[in-house]
This record gives sequence, structure tokens and C-alpha cells, in this order.
Amino acid sequence: MAKVLVLYYSRTGNTKKMAELIGEGVKKESADVDVKDVKEIKVEALLNYDGIIIGSPTYYGTLAAEIKKFLDESVKFHGQLEGKVGGAFSSSANIGGGNETTILSIIEAMLIHGMVVQGNSSGDHYGPVSIGAPDDRVKKQCRELGSRIARLVKRLG
Amino acid sequence: MAKVLVLYYSRTGNTKKMAELIGEGVKKESADVDVKDVKEIKVEALLNYDGIIIGSPTYYGTLAAEIKKFLDESVKFHGQLEGKVGGAFSSSANIGGGNETTILSIIEAMLIHGMVVQGNSSGDHYGPVSIGAPDDRVKKQCRELGSRIARLVKRLG
Amino acid sequence: MAKVLVLYYSRTGNTKKMAELIGEGVKKESADVDVKDVKEIKVEALLNYDGIIIGSPTYYGTLAAEIKKFLDESVKFHGQLEGKVGGAFSSSANIGGGNETTILSIIEAMLIHGMVVQGNSSGDHYGPVSIGAPDDRVKKQCRELGSRIARLVKRLG
Amino acid sequence: MAKVLVLYYSRTGNTKKMAELIGEGVKKESADVDVKDVKEIKVEALLNYDGIIIGSPTYYGTLAAEIKKFLDESVKFHGQLEGKVGGAFSSSANIGGGNETTILSIIEAMLIHGMVVQGNSSGDHYGPVSIGAPDDRVKKQCRELGSRIARLVKRLG
Repeated sequence: MAKVLVLYYSRTGNTKKMAELIGEGVKKESADVDVKDVKEIKVEALLNYDGIIIGSPTYYGTLAAEIKKFLDESVKFHGQLEGKVGGAFSSSANIGGGNETTILSIIEAMLIHGMVVQGNSSGDHYGPVSIGAPDDRVKKQCRELGSRIARLVKRLG
Repeated sequence: MAKVLVLYYSRTGNTKKMAELIGEGVKKESADVDVKDVKEIKVEALLNYDGIIIGSPTYYGTLAAEIKKFLDESVKFHGQLEGKVGGAFSSSANIGGGNETTILSIIEAMLIHGMVVQGNSSGDHYGPVSIGAPDDRVKKQCRELGSRIARLVKRLG
Repeated sequence: MAKVLVLYYSRTGNTKKMAELIGEGVKKESADVDVKDVKEIKVEALLNYDGIIIGSPTYYGTLAAEIKKFLDESVKFHGQLEGKVGGAFSSSANIGGGNETTILSIIEAMLIHGMVVQGNSSGDHYGPVSIGAPDDRVKKQCRELGSRIARLVKRLG
Repeated sequence: MAKVLVLYYSRTGNTKKMAELIGEGVKKESADVDVKDVKEIKVEALLNYDGIIIGSPTYYGTLAAEIKKFLDESVKFHGQLEGKVGGAFSSSANIGGGNETTILSIIEAMLIHGMVVQGNSSGDHYGPVSIGAPDDRVKKQCRELGSRIARLVKRLG
């Protein structure tokens, strides 16, 4: 059975809420999902998943240090994530506040791990962006990302 | 007297409207400003300005081909724009629709020309983003960018 | 049978040479490949391929205007490239000369089309970069990209 | 007198070596310079400098977690770095290994602080990149960055 991890760091709760919504989207496709705070998981766990979705608040235009530390540590499994599916999302205080560059900083790390990433032609193209707390638009984007990743994992089977 | 160019490409009129608002901001700082459609200017004109602000709609996450063509042609003056001040802006259909990466694609071109770029700590950090037609928030961001660039040009004077 | 397009723009011949090497890599995986100059193809052709690899020289840190024009025109098939596999490459005059941002500008366009992109954990992570004419290192990177894309297309089959 | 900080994180010593070379470039322009490991400085110190140059090894395509942590903490002085001059550099294992995106991740943070950044029309455009230990090309780029930042600080005086 396809297994997906939704990993996040959250201070205000907005990124956590997005993570939970993405988890719902994964489940809708009948895939297994774990939604985890970066503080409650070890980097070894990455090996257990077929899909890895990472979310961070927008801090100075890139992923939060807490997420970056986790990714820097993942170097000890460098090469072993090759071919897994990845996705990214971010919450942000403002439009134009660095949210897209934050999502891309996560996608770049995933590409460097040799992971497979898909964009979205009809919504938030690189990954869901929430300006403040998730509204209905964002909720839909998040659920869709979860479902999209689950489907891609199964397609790559 | 400080001279600033606001250069844009616009199909729907949104980017043009942003350009005009930025022009207002430049004037407020008692600097000279020309607001020009990319189709009505030759690349040679870049040499006449102390500050150059470029705007593009968000097409596939980077500047429109019409603007890129202009920048690719600017290579014949490569090195001669060194030290001039630059700024960028974009209009976009959606939040998370590639607007920040579009602005950064313009900023990257400016850095490669050796130009000087400043961010904004309190608004749209890389440059103004309009989702659809400029609303009051965007209008303020645009006027502020014009004023900010004019002040930086004078400070570097 | 898996069909892959390698599309390029080239002035000096370096990007063209990279495209041909990538084509060799695709063939090695027994997939069909067309290697085309952007000037000799219509945007409609994109619909015929399962994998699309795009290369551009590094001009001011993003894809050349000729490639951007082609991508801007592809908007008329927006949504129809969803789920196809993408890859990107660039030739550049210098290390640190904007080659990675050029490759990312292509990848960003592919994500906005909803395409599937994979990085490489062991070589040029985002896509092959040639500094000047392709040397042995670059030749290997290019052939590997072609093979990698062909394999991913077949895996997604 | 113009004061410039060169701040780095380094594990192998390559980024540290680059920092020292940049420091030499600053001194050549008769400006004051401090070259500091991120572990030996507090975020409060940023307020004391007119120019801030930050270097990081290339870890998964963005700045190292140690540097990001420092920048995330700098939020308590958000707005107070507005108008200061910034610069960035990176050492990397490979060409195409994420070095440009690492430099841009630092530049993006600086723009979000409202800082002033200048590119280089004739060398490593966004900032110096070293592939492995700094060779003669890189040494020149580093010294030039230091001098360039010092001159811009004085010009903005």
C-alpha cells in the first residue's frame, strides 16, 4: 500500500492545519498517511515512505531553519530517496511575501535527492500557499495536493 | 536630475496600470520618469536612465517573451548598466501562480547586468505583485516601489 | 512506445550538442526520440510526446526569448501537458553565470503545466550544465538525463 | 568609517577560506571588516555594520541550517537592516550542484530585510561560487566581491 508522509514545522498553527488537510487528500486516494511535526520524527523515517510532502512557514523567503536542519541531516541517506515522490507547501503572512520561493527551496532539496515532483496546472502551481489561516481556496488546494501525490505514488508503483 | 524608466509589457492592462502607479511614486520624489511599453522603446534607451523598473505579467513563472527578448538584446550594452538601480513587478492570475518567480527572473537579469536592487522589508518583499487588477494594497505597493527606487537613485547619485 | 522530445535553442552550437547527447541517452533506453531546434517545431507538437526535455543557453539567468516565446504560446494547450515528464538543461559561458537559474526557469514552466520532473542525486542536480562546449563530464550528464527521462516515462506508462 | 561583516558557516574550510579572501577585498578599499564564523556572533551584531556578506556551503540547494537559524533569529530586528548593503557566496562540491540557488536563497533573505544587493556583470553574477577549494579564479571573484561591497557602502554613505 502506498505510504505518504506529510512533514511540517508550524509556530502559529497555519502550516500544521495545511498539513492535516493534505493528509485528508492522501487518505481520499486510499493511501496510508502520517502527518508529523518535524520535531517528532527522525530522518531515518524518510526511508519508509513512497511520497514525502514537506511544509514550512515562509521565513525570509526559504524553508524554516528547523526544516532545513532536518534536510541537512538527510544527507546520510543521500541517494536512497531517489525516485520517491515529493511535494511542498507554505503558509505566509503576505502575498508576495516569499511563499513561492519557500516552496521552491523545498522542491530544490527534493530534486537534489533525486525525487520526482509534479506541478499543478490549475491551482497553486508549485504547491499550496496560504496567506494567513487557510481559507476555502487553500483548503481545496491542500486536499488536492495530497490526492495528487498519492495518485502519482500509485502510478509510479 | 534623477531619471527613472518604468518599462512594461501588458496584455490585459493590469501590468500597465501597475507601471503608471509606479511612475506616480517616482514623481513624488521629484525624479524624472518615463513609463513605456516595451514595444515603443529601443534597447539603446536603457543607457539614458539611472533607475530601470521592469514589469511583466506572470507567464509560466518567468517574464514574458516580449520582455525577455528586450533583455536578451540588451547584451550589446553588457557592462554599461553596471551600478544602475533596478526594480521589478508582476501581475498574476493567482496567488501562488508564479508571480514571485517572475519578479525574481527580472531581478536575476538585473544582477547579471551588475545593477543594484533593493528589497522591501514591509510589503511585497521582492517587488509588487497584483492578483488580477491592482487593488488598494497593490496601488500602495506600486507607488512605494517608485518612490523607493527614486530615493535609492538619489542616494547613489 | 515511449516518445520523447528534446527541444533546444542554440546559437553557438553548445546547447545543440547537448541536445544530441541527451537524444542518445533516450535511445539507449529503447524509447523514440526527436531532437528539434525550437525554430523547426510548432507548439502543437508537444501533445505527441510523453516526455519533453528543453534546453537553452544561459541568457541573463533565464531561458532564451526564443524558448520563452514557444512556452508562452503553449498556453493554448494549458492543462493538456499535465502528467507528462519534463527535463531541462543549459549551456553557459561561466560557472556561477546563471545556468542553474536558467534550468530552474524551464522547470518552473513545466511545473506550471502540471508536468512531472525528477532531479538527479549524483550529478548536475537540476539538469546538465555545460560551461562552454560539453566536456566528458557534461556528455555523461546529458546521456544520463536522456536515459533517466525515458525510464521515468516508461515507469509512468 | 564603513564597516563590513563577512559571516560564514564552514565545515570543510572552503567557505571559510572564501570569507577571508572577501575580507581582504574589503580592506583593500580601506573599509573596516570583521570576518566571523556564524557560531561566534550574535544576531544583535548585524546592527553594527553597513555591509553584510554571508556565505554558506551548498547543502540541498539552499543555505545551511546554521545560517538559516541565524537569519530566522534576525527577525527581531526586522526593518532595522533596511538599506544596508548585502552580498552572498557559496562553496559547492559540483558545478550544477545547487550553488546558484544557495546564493540566491541568501540574497532573497537580504531583500526581505530591505537590503541593497548588487550583481556583477563580469564574473560570478550573483556572487562567488567555489567548486571545491578556491582556485585562482575564485580567489579573484572573492576579493572583487569584498571590494565591490565596500565601494557600494561608501557610495551609499
